[in-house]
Amino acid sequence: MLDYKLLQALASVVENGGFERAGDALGLTQSAVSQRIKSLEVRLGQPLLTRHPELKATPAGQKLLNHFQQVQLLERDLHHAIPTLTEESSRLRIAINADSVATWWAAAIGDFCRREGLLLDLVIEDQDVGLKRMREGDVAACLCSNSQPIAGARAVPITAASYWPLATPDYRNHYFSDGLTPTAFESAPAIIFGPNDQLQHRFLAGLGYHGRFPFHLCPSSEGFVQMARAGIGYGMIPEMQARQWIQSGELINLAPGHELTVPLYWHFWRHSGELLQRLTRTLQTMSQ
Amino acid sequence: MLDYKLLQALASVVENGGFERAGDALGLTQSAVSQRIKSLEVRLGQPLLTRHPELKATPAGQKLLNHFQQVQLLERDLHHAIPTLTEESSRLRIAINADSVATWWAAAIGDFCRREGLLLDLVIEDQDVGLKRMREGDVAACLCSNSQPIAGARAVPITAASYWPLATPDYRNHYFSDGLTPTAFESAPAIIFGPNDQLQHRFLAGLGYHGRFPFHLCPSSEGFVQMARAGIGYGMIPEMQARQWIQSGELINLAPGHELTVPLYWHFWRHSGELLQRLTRTLQTMSQ
Repeated sequence: MLDYKLLQALASVVENGGFERAGDALGLTQSAVSQRIKSLEVRLGQPLLTRHPELKATPAGQKLLNHFQQVQLLERDLHHAIPTLTEESSRLRIAINADSVATWWAAAIGDFCRREGLLLDLVIEDQDVGLKRMREGDVAACLCSNSQPIAGARAVPITAASYWPLATPDYRNHYFSDGLTPTAFESAPAIIFGPNDQLQHRFLAGLGYHGRFPFHLCPSSEGFVQMARAGIGYGMIPEMQARQWIQSGELINLAPGHELTVPLYWHFWRHSGELLQRLTRTLQTMSQ
Repeated sequence: MLDYKLLQALASVVENGGFERAGDALGLTQSAVSQRIKSLEVRLGQPLLTRHPELKATPAGQKLLNHFQQVQLLERDLHHAIPTLTEESSRLRIAINADSVATWWAAAIGDFCRREGLLLDLVIEDQDVGLKRMREGDVAACLCSNSQPIAGARAVPITAASYWPLATPDYRNHYFSDGLTPTAFESAPAIIFGPNDQLQHRFLAGLGYHGRFPFHLCPSSEGFVQMARAGIGYGMIPEMQARQWIQSGELINLAPGHELTVPLYWHFWRHSGELLQRLTRTLQTMSQ
């Protein structure tokens, strides 16, 4: 049988990003935390943490963390089944795309968190990175636009976000006064969330444009909208997030009929316990 | 003399996160990009990129990128001095804290970007990580709350953000009906941006509370506000970002007189050329 006090120390170091903070969270000294992890490493005969370039679990450490997380979820079910067991508040670590967190997520799961006493550790990642973290045991669930479940997990459709090509009226008059022409696309600065963001390319391809275009990179949902509002660029923005500025006329749709829809899927381990099952049902109810 | 075509290939791989996308950006095949980087590695006698766990520059590669960025900035000045040189639009890679991007940043630099034809690569990082990226040559400037300049750089004060302890009225009635007591802090879920976020700790310490408290982690500025609005937790939010919900009464200040002020400093290389100097002056004007 594993010594779960040792695994808890490992999880706390990774979660808190350091030995001292892990000690604070567990009510232990830094050196006690360090001892526990050493014991675990001796037992497994290999390192469980790397310190450079950043503090993170090794592949073996990630497997242990994945296991620890699932045991915690199962333990929590046990607390429900045997109410006389002392109840601890539970944490769930979830990878989620930035635009969902910036828009509908909190309102959708607010009641659930309050009712269940659930604390969230959100990790903002898009697509494949979120699923990679799930595979590595870093997160228990993942919300992203990939529909393919990873081995041992399920993926269920939750909602779909509608992205509109938005800019200020001044921006349109300056760059697109002759319409959505190749020449305009060559010179009009776009806004892109990051190197993995393909929405702008898809939008342009849908209009028959496959050439290069200037762009700003802004990996912040809210910053993205602020840059469009400041007239710095145009970009694909969730209609839900920009609604108030679309209604006021501050932002306008540059190409009605060329909006893009991005479906979102909820990925979770098959045998992850009842808390995650209930959260899944809550999200599914929302989508109906 | 260095072959800057090779450095450009290196910069493009790091910026675009891959060889194929770097090739697309430069109008080269993936194998041509790869050849250029190999030539550079042969000349320097050491690797310039690591591929695992993620694609990034080695310390030697970072020094080259830092140099390349400064040469680009100086070249841009030359284009201003000799307008007959073909002008390329210029990019500036900047590390910036999430809350600034979510609030005042775009409005402050919008005119400047349009006037100068400047394209931004924003990297969202707080504090020490942003400065570390600057030291490594990954960014040309950094906006963060650290006042200490790194070697070769300057730091100038720009603005200060006021953080208010905010929650919904329902949340206050549920958790703080007996006031801001230690018992209440022990059970009221807070919201924290990430393991490095010390604002909540500072707020509680200012009220004499040094114990543990439950918390959600949400590394998204906008998500943070949405979680507070959904009644999932309370947290330290920039007053500027929450103003509309404070005015409507949807969010309330839990402890007037216990707001926290976080000063923000702009870090930039001393010899980084006129574009960055002008951007610095724009930011300084804003702060007056």
